[in-house]
Amino acid sequence: MHRVTVQYAVPTDPADFDARYRAEHVPLVHALPGLAGCTLSWPEPLAGEKVVHLVAQLDFATAEDLQTALRSPAMAEAGRHAATLGVPASMFVGEVETVA
Amino acid sequence: MHRVTVQYAVPTDPADFDARYRAEHVPLVHALPGLAGCTLSWPEPLAGEKVVHLVAQLDFATAEDLQTALRSPAMAEAGRHAATLGVPASMFVGEVETVA
Repeated sequence: MHRVTVQYAVPTDPADFDARYRAEHVPLVHALPGLAGCTLSWPEPLAGEKVVHLVAQLDFATAEDLQTALRSPAMAEAGRHAATLGVPASMFVGEVETVA
Repeated sequence: MHRVTVQYAVPTDPADFDARYRAEHVPLVHALPGLAGCTLSWPEPLAGEKVVHLVAQLDFATAEDLQTALRSPAMAEAGRHAATLGVPASMFVGEVETVA
């Protein structure tokens, strides 16, 4: 499994952010070619400051599928929309290894 | 699904860190009560500085299972071992929602 992880910083109005993310952004994620799965989570730190509000994980079967999605018009559209959500986002990519 | 995410900062010797993580730490993770799954990934930022070397995600079926694991002797042992790995680690917990 190959994963794109997007971490969104804490917004001023988390409820409004989540509503827009679900209504506007999730459909754009669904349009990505080769998407094998997507999860959302709102992690709470066990210690220290909360700097991340939402983590979206987009899974692809192969590295090629992931690269195809990254270069797709649908990803460009999703990126343009993400920029309107009003918080910085960080993106990471990598293979995911299942150990249990 | 309820998830514990552990992010390890970039070590001085990543290959040695990974070897110790696999040989010594993964067996301690396997000993956690109620563990439903565990994945490892080594994410590369698409832009900006790399600050995270390894992300471990420990999944539990329910919030109760997660809390039981967090309070278990096996988690205390895993935490003690993680502290010997030589890099700061951040831990987050949260429910994971599947949207695709």
